[in-house]
Amino acid sequence: MSASPLRIGVVGLGRLGKRHAENLAYRVSGAALVAVCSPVEAERMWARETLPAPRVYDDYRALLDDRDVDAVWLVTPSALHAQQIIDALRAGKHVFCEKPLSLDFAECERVIEEAQRHPQLQATIGFMRRFDPSYRNAFEKIEAGAIGRPFMVRSQTCDQNDPEGFFVRFAPTSGGIFLDCTVHDIDVARWLLGMPKAKRVYASGVVALHEGLREFGDVDNGVAICEFEGGRLAMFYASRTLAHGNDTGSEVIGTAGALYIGRNPRANRVEIADASGIRNECAPTFFDRFEEAFLCEAQAFVAAVREGRQSGATLADAMEATRIGYALRESLASGRAVDL
Amino acid sequence: MSASPLRIGVVGLGRLGKRHAENLAYRVSGAALVAVCSPVEAERMWARETLPAPRVYDDYRALLDDRDVDAVWLVTPSALHAQQIIDALRAGKHVFCEKPLSLDFAECERVIEEAQRHPQLQATIGFMRRFDPSYRNAFEKIEAGAIGRPFMVRSQTCDQNDPEGFFVRFAPTSGGIFLDCTVHDIDVARWLLGMPKAKRVYASGVVALHEGLREFGDVDNGVAICEFEGGRLAMFYASRTLAHGNDTGSEVIGTAGALYIGRNPRANRVEIADASGIRNECAPTFFDRFEEAFLCEAQAFVAAVREGRQSGATLADAMEATRIGYALRESLASGRAVDL
Amino acid sequence: MSASPLRIGVVGLGRLGKRHAENLAYRVSGAALVAVCSPVEAERMWARETLPAPRVYDDYRALLDDRDVDAVWLVTPSALHAQQIIDALRAGKHVFCEKPLSLDFAECERVIEEAQRHPQLQATIGFMRRFDPSYRNAFEKIEAGAIGRPFMVRSQTCDQNDPEGFFVRFAPTSGGIFLDCTVHDIDVARWLLGMPKAKRVYASGVVALHEGLREFGDVDNGVAICEFEGGRLAMFYASRTLAHGNDTGSEVIGTAGALYIGRNPRANRVEIADASGIRNECAPTFFDRFEEAFLCEAQAFVAAVREGRQSGATLADAMEATRIGYALRESLASGRAVDL
Amino acid sequence: MSASPLRIGVVGLGRLGKRHAENLAYRVSGAALVAVCSPVEAERMWARETLPAPRVYDDYRALLDDRDVDAVWLVTPSALHAQQIIDALRAGKHVFCEKPLSLDFAECERVIEEAQRHPQLQATIGFMRRFDPSYRNAFEKIEAGAIGRPFMVRSQTCDQNDPEGFFVRFAPTSGGIFLDCTVHDIDVARWLLGMPKAKRVYASGVVALHEGLREFGDVDNGVAICEFEGGRLAMFYASRTLAHGNDTGSEVIGTAGALYIGRNPRANRVEIADASGIRNECAPTFFDRFEEAFLCEAQAFVAAVREGRQSGATLADAMEATRIGYALRESLASGRAVDL
Repeated sequence: MSASPLRIGVVGLGRLGKRHAENLAYRVSGAALVAVCSPVEAERMWARETLPAPRVYDDYRALLDDRDVDAVWLVTPSALHAQQIIDALRAGKHVFCEKPLSLDFAECERVIEEAQRHPQLQATIGFMRRFDPSYRNAFEKIEAGAIGRPFMVRSQTCDQNDPEGFFVRFAPTSGGIFLDCTVHDIDVARWLLGMPKAKRVYASGVVALHEGLREFGDVDNGVAICEFEGGRLAMFYASRTLAHGNDTGSEVIGTAGALYIGRNPRANRVEIADASGIRNECAPTFFDRFEEAFLCEAQAFVAAVREGRQSGATLADAMEATRIGYALRESLASGRAVDL
Repeated sequence: MSASPLRIGVVGLGRLGKRHAENLAYRVSGAALVAVCSPVEAERMWARETLPAPRVYDDYRALLDDRDVDAVWLVTPSALHAQQIIDALRAGKHVFCEKPLSLDFAECERVIEEAQRHPQLQATIGFMRRFDPSYRNAFEKIEAGAIGRPFMVRSQTCDQNDPEGFFVRFAPTSGGIFLDCTVHDIDVARWLLGMPKAKRVYASGVVALHEGLREFGDVDNGVAICEFEGGRLAMFYASRTLAHGNDTGSEVIGTAGALYIGRNPRANRVEIADASGIRNECAPTFFDRFEEAFLCEAQAFVAAVREGRQSGATLADAMEATRIGYALRESLASGRAVDL
Repeated sequence: MSASPLRIGVVGLGRLGKRHAENLAYRVSGAALVAVCSPVEAERMWARETLPAPRVYDDYRALLDDRDVDAVWLVTPSALHAQQIIDALRAGKHVFCEKPLSLDFAECERVIEEAQRHPQLQATIGFMRRFDPSYRNAFEKIEAGAIGRPFMVRSQTCDQNDPEGFFVRFAPTSGGIFLDCTVHDIDVARWLLGMPKAKRVYASGVVALHEGLREFGDVDNGVAICEFEGGRLAMFYASRTLAHGNDTGSEVIGTAGALYIGRNPRANRVEIADASGIRNECAPTFFDRFEEAFLCEAQAFVAAVREGRQSGATLADAMEATRIGYALRESLASGRAVDL
Repeated sequence: MSASPLRIGVVGLGRLGKRHAENLAYRVSGAALVAVCSPVEAERMWARETLPAPRVYDDYRALLDDRDVDAVWLVTPSALHAQQIIDALRAGKHVFCEKPLSLDFAECERVIEEAQRHPQLQATIGFMRRFDPSYRNAFEKIEAGAIGRPFMVRSQTCDQNDPEGFFVRFAPTSGGIFLDCTVHDIDVARWLLGMPKAKRVYASGVVALHEGLREFGDVDNGVAICEFEGGRLAMFYASRTLAHGNDTGSEVIGTAGALYIGRNPRANRVEIADASGIRNECAPTFFDRFEEAFLCEAQAFVAAVREGRQSGATLADAMEATRIGYALRESLASGRAVDL
């Protein structure tokens, strides 16, 4: 393993970017947060006050020119990911990039071609569920044969309803519910089923609450079936309208048993017994639910780069997830099954 | 209400028939089990030894001629249902018939036409889940507005794996997994969503363990999406191969909350804490899970007939369930969405 | 087994008496409810309208003189139990009597002496939890060695709070919380631990809500420790003030595992997910929780008498439970441990 | 708040000491781990290799003389706590000390007297459950009135059985199960009930598996009742012999509801459905269960010292817990209730 720490520059300091920056600054052994970059003055101010003296850039190009940065951590708008990854690789930096790789399939291919020219650099897309301790535990149980041969995954990404429908404003650029949310479930399903390729998908959905989505052909509740090679299946559900919290979890069914991951999104270990019954409160957001996953993901990336190996989802994995997500969107629009 | 008890003849004394007969004999107020009918001598013997002195027939026609029988209770092979219902109605008997009404759509229509000629007679198909106390409780909560407007149902019918694959022998006549199992979920979904008509379905499936199903075009794990009118959706799952028991339940999602019915198929109120963790055992069969539903269903039918009103699923409901189940089978075979 | 049914007379038709009467009339194979007895005209009226033509008495003596009654079923005030059992035995009747045998220890002994003069007659005290399917399942698991050697029981009898404090009116005659409620837990603990004798007890309690109990030296929340012979222990909790329902259950701890019975008093199989979290509703009363136990208990008694064997708690078991309950009351009053 | 970090020296680098050292080195904002101390060469070696260049001492006195150390963190054998705290205070250091303050009541008083001479120094005993997020959530709910007036706590500290009975070797110095384990529950009960003083206790226990404890008058399963002033109660359970894991949790019962904390000691968010039923695995040790509590506790101590205020259990709280734990031990030995 490399003796010196991996020197990281975080690009993008929105809500999730801040969290990544704090993890990298204080909680990831072997990492040194040496630079941040944001076009927003308030975010740069936050970095100066909160983080341990990083260099603060307002321009991505300048950060790439910083020779003390070994790796960039992209927490930027989805539309920028592909080109930013390419630029980082050309600048000789390792890349961690939040999902999705791109909403455009041709762009995915362009990034992968570029990456192939830099085999010494790591590039990973942030499908953090692979690092969540419970998902990891399930993965290990499957590897150990606990449920026989896994043949089906049911997976969901469901947000608590935002009565103000803030996310509707992102509908024009989010790629729609399947590329924005279900892309996580697609990666989880492939990861737990042995990385199969998809053969055919079908999707459907409804607008339950947020009428503003209709003009973009989007829905606030979407469902899908995905058939993989080799007799493997997945069912997906994504929602923007749950009442009880962020209810994101998965189920893997095998020939000798099944595993449920996060079936009840408990906020903590407290149960309340009162006139309404016995209940637990639920994690309100995916930040709360996946706080530990984001940290473990960062630790794994840093360790992997220092040890010269891959960790987490490859660019090819991310491209396949995008390819499937695209097909789901197409199916939703056409009302027909889509062959891949 | 009628002063005298409803005199019932049970037709078919297989495993489920015996259960119905015992319920009607001993546990249903207002019912008198006066006759049974079976072509199997051992089953008739059982009836003589176990039940309170019913008349025992080996011929359905003879039972229909019995003027002391007010209602017949058909627990016979699916292929016989339609004609037996028609014969019973023509003989002036009320009819309770186990699901399905028929695997043939034209036959469904024929039964309905006949029933319309006998408006004074009740005819009900046994979708017992509507009478399970937990399903009923969920239905009442929805009626009371507890989850806002319900727009989606996820429902499953999953059997514990039978290592000997006994059910494969019935594959030629069962109608396939969707008409045999999912038909219950279809009825549940429509019932909980306000009895909408289906617009389009898509189905898929795999053979996980029972290779013998392939020659019949059947699967041992099937999934489906069903789109209803009015922005309502359902997802279905049926399995013959679960390791842990009969796991049959449903989930209803509304604009202000969700209800889960039977999410953990607990066998009882016992939890076991040992070196393997903390666990509950599971109900092994649908008999165990729905024992009370079968009883409540019988009580409701008897009460309804005596009060001159309908109870449970109508013939039209059963026909719509068959229509949707057929479309699922067609989709499974073609790999294409099917419009209804 | 006796060929003819056991002819039963139910004595006392309050809320629980009615339930026993209906069970015996309609749901217990081998039983014939032939007589009832109540001093209350409205209750006798109910019997005439609801039950299948029993002989209706207003005088216990008259019922005992009825030669067509094989067994009496005493659901009368506790203070009457001992003498009524003695009278029934002298009249040659089998006896099922609701708990407690008596609140007076000398009376217990008197009943047992009388019973010894009638070895051909069954006499059982109604500790119905032994017949609850979940308790029975736990008992069988223990017998099968599932938790090694059981050495400790934690058991509780907790009622939902009655804001009107109706039960306070019974405080003068109930015997106090330990003889009224915990007596069930005492029997459960002994039954699950192999029927040991108690050596020493300590009890304490508080008045949380019902100040009217203080004048009777009673509490609305009581706790106790009971040490048995042979290195076995029990902890008890009884409450009259729970917010969420009737929460009555037990835990058995052994050298190789533990069993929890009824740890969450779910009303049914429905879970509700809404803005308050994910919850289940709870059984409101012990009638709801132990409905099936009362039925199984009656079925077991009838079967046992017809087969000439004992079922359920013996008079000696009931006397030991009273002895321990008394010691708990004494400990509560004195603040000292009580040796038995 | 102080601008410079709190410079800490960790004393004792056993299993728990290592965990504290790593937390303070890498995960506690505002803390600088500047020194460690251990008499064990292997532990000092570990510190040199793992921690960020602290000064490494083999002698406590030398660490106290280090002027760059602001606070000491004592993770040493219980018998040393009292004198080490006194020495630290005299050396002008803030003190965090693992529980218990002391097993000797007179020593507790001596420490408190010394602390009163140094009002500018913080001294806290490590009852980490107060910092566990779920315990804290329950505390906040109680403060907010969610369960009305809390009047009873049931709390337990239960370890998974160690078949080799390693802990029996510590029986001579552990103080017995109540001072070693239940002392946590005592503190939790007082904290959740408003810090009442105890009036009377009763304790009992059995040796279920570890016969070697008998010669020290200790047990491997202990139970107790503790009566506090003001009509408040607690029940305690401590075990060294559970099969399923570390099952440490608490329940608070109030006049309008109850809270359960950690009723099922889930290892993670995974459930396993297989032939044995549906289960979750359990946290094996208190390290696993309370990992986050240890971290939050350290963060809270550091923040409190820097802000010049108390955090966590005071020395007086620790002394009261010891006083009650002592009385429990005395009650176990005598079989009598003990008045305080």
